[in-house]
Amino acid sequence: MNVAVDAMGGDHAPELVVQGAVDAVSELGINIILVGHERRMAKALSGYPLQDRISFHHCEDVVRMEESPLKALRKKKDASIKVAFDLVKKGRADAVISAGNSGATLAAGVLALGRIKGVERPAIAAIVPTERGPIVLIDVGANVDCRPSQLFQFGIMANAFACSCLGMKDPNVGLLSIGEEESKGNEQVRLAHELFDKSDLNFVGNVEGRDILSGKVKIIVCDGFVGNVALKLTEGAVEAMGRVIEKELMSSFLGRAALMLGRESIYKFIRKLDYEVHGGAPLLGINGVGMICHGSSSAKAIKSAISIAVQYVNNRVLEKMTLQLKTSKY
Amino acid sequence: MNVAVDAMGGDHAPELVVQGAVDAVSELGINIILVGHERRMAKALSGYPLQDRISFHHCEDVVRMEESPLKALRKKKDASIKVAFDLVKKGRADAVISAGNSGATLAAGVLALGRIKGVERPAIAAIVPTERGPIVLIDVGANVDCRPSQLFQFGIMANAFACSCLGMKDPNVGLLSIGEEESKGNEQVRLAHELFDKSDLNFVGNVEGRDILSGKVKIIVCDGFVGNVALKLTEGAVEAMGRVIEKELMSSFLGRAALMLGRESIYKFIRKLDYEVHGGAPLLGINGVGMICHGSSSAKAIKSAISIAVQYVNNRVLEKMTLQLKTSKY
Repeated sequence: MNVAVDAMGGDHAPELVVQGAVDAVSELGINIILVGHERRMAKALSGYPLQDRISFHHCEDVVRMEESPLKALRKKKDASIKVAFDLVKKGRADAVISAGNSGATLAAGVLALGRIKGVERPAIAAIVPTERGPIVLIDVGANVDCRPSQLFQFGIMANAFACSCLGMKDPNVGLLSIGEEESKGNEQVRLAHELFDKSDLNFVGNVEGRDILSGKVKIIVCDGFVGNVALKLTEGAVEAMGRVIEKELMSSFLGRAALMLGRESIYKFIRKLDYEVHGGAPLLGINGVGMICHGSSSAKAIKSAISIAVQYVNNRVLEKMTLQLKTSKY
Repeated sequence: MNVAVDAMGGDHAPELVVQGAVDAVSELGINIILVGHERRMAKALSGYPLQDRISFHHCEDVVRMEESPLKALRKKKDASIKVAFDLVKKGRADAVISAGNSGATLAAGVLALGRIKGVERPAIAAIVPTERGPIVLIDVGANVDCRPSQLFQFGIMANAFACSCLGMKDPNVGLLSIGEEESKGNEQVRLAHELFDKSDLNFVGNVEGRDILSGKVKIIVCDGFVGNVALKLTEGAVEAMGRVIEKELMSSFLGRAALMLGRESIYKFIRKLDYEVHGGAPLLGINGVGMICHGSSSAKAIKSAISIAVQYVNNRVLEKMTLQLKTSKY
């Protein structure tokens, strides 16, 4: 299998991206095509033992984080994220990983590979760590306003992904709203509720914000505005709480002693709710495999994202998703 | 000052509500009118030393948590929350506190007292604890879909409240969106951005989910769907993290030792991000003073909410808000 990695995307590119790719090669036995500026990639790779399975694909440009995705892609024909998806289109790669501009990754994926037949809107699904293991939150930013049928498709796509790549079996699906009663929420949510109710999915009805991190509901569907706020709030909460607890402990003698003894456990708690374990957010609904990583991704996060992409390909998620979309009535 | 407390609202009513009222009386020197079933209130109060400043206002009914607010209010003319707001309407009370059905509290407040002149939609503002002190998140559930002008009014009302009741001085105001760039977000947010930009508020532009708990932006404006998800997610996150960290610490010998030594600091961390300190969410935009408390409010939370209502009245927030709404152009 060949995975195209956008080596220029992310706050720590190309160094940590390359390191994550190296780790993935040794762990997963796949081939990696690093897409980006050859000289910079070669320099980043130089510290590692010779890797037969890693090749370079040179390109000049990169879409920067702050750029408008569509404008940048129109202007920069040789941008790494565009070139990476073109490799998939040409059959030379099976999947794309990028920690760069997520809007550009989404747009480049759709432009190069198109959508799965019947999909109205591709979406970004985040794998959110909780105390009961990972859950899938979809959409986390691709679509700010969603029709009920789109929300319903997000549920079907996330279900296929979660079963094939996260080892879930008939995961329960909830619709994010502001009250558990069917009548609660906005118009889109109320109508989507009816579609889910009639489906074969293991639908549990509306869930609330507090249910996201409890981990009891494995797939949570919402529009990309709400999902993006929720995802970033969760990230911010884990960080803020890590800081607050450390400060509290450091402020007393007993606390400092406790921190010395419990440091390992306390950081394990933060790691448990840490995004690096799952690394990337799959782009669901495009006719191919793409993973979006956090801009500040570590090497471990990149490696994890590659690992999920490999399962995505190996477990033929695209085929399953296409079939499930076709057989679902809405 | 006379504060009407809905003694029948909340998971621990009337016991903890009454206890909170008793504490408020001794701490704040105000009068409390407990509204609810007299026999049950008298029983809950019986354990406390004689309180001259507490009186009963008997009523038979209560709107239950799971009831539809408007239907319940139409049917139950003698519901405690309705009767409490009627006391304000009749000039016999200055403010209402309820830990009951929040939709019914909002509806009863609007029905009895009406809106401040010019206010399109009243909103619920949550006081969210962060590592840098409290911030105000508005709206957290009153309005699922909001016009740009409504979002703008939420900002003005929250500003008046934060300055008068939380001691803030020219607090900065952010618009919750999914990217810091002005072009990001949905249509409502983009248009509201323009209104805020032209205003006298200390507007800092769009903020993201991760900014909520950082506490750097003191007033964060969003529609009630997004705000409700964010608020409940924050509550859920604090609880989940408390559980995860305790479990981690308990799972190793050093961790258990650390927990013994650091218990105080660790719980202080949870308390720091705990809602009880601020207790209630003010109902902004109605022509009167109402505080909505969490259904699971402790006595401390009830007392805190009463304390904020007292400041609301004493600092003439209604007048200031009315003036600011009148002089703001949009």
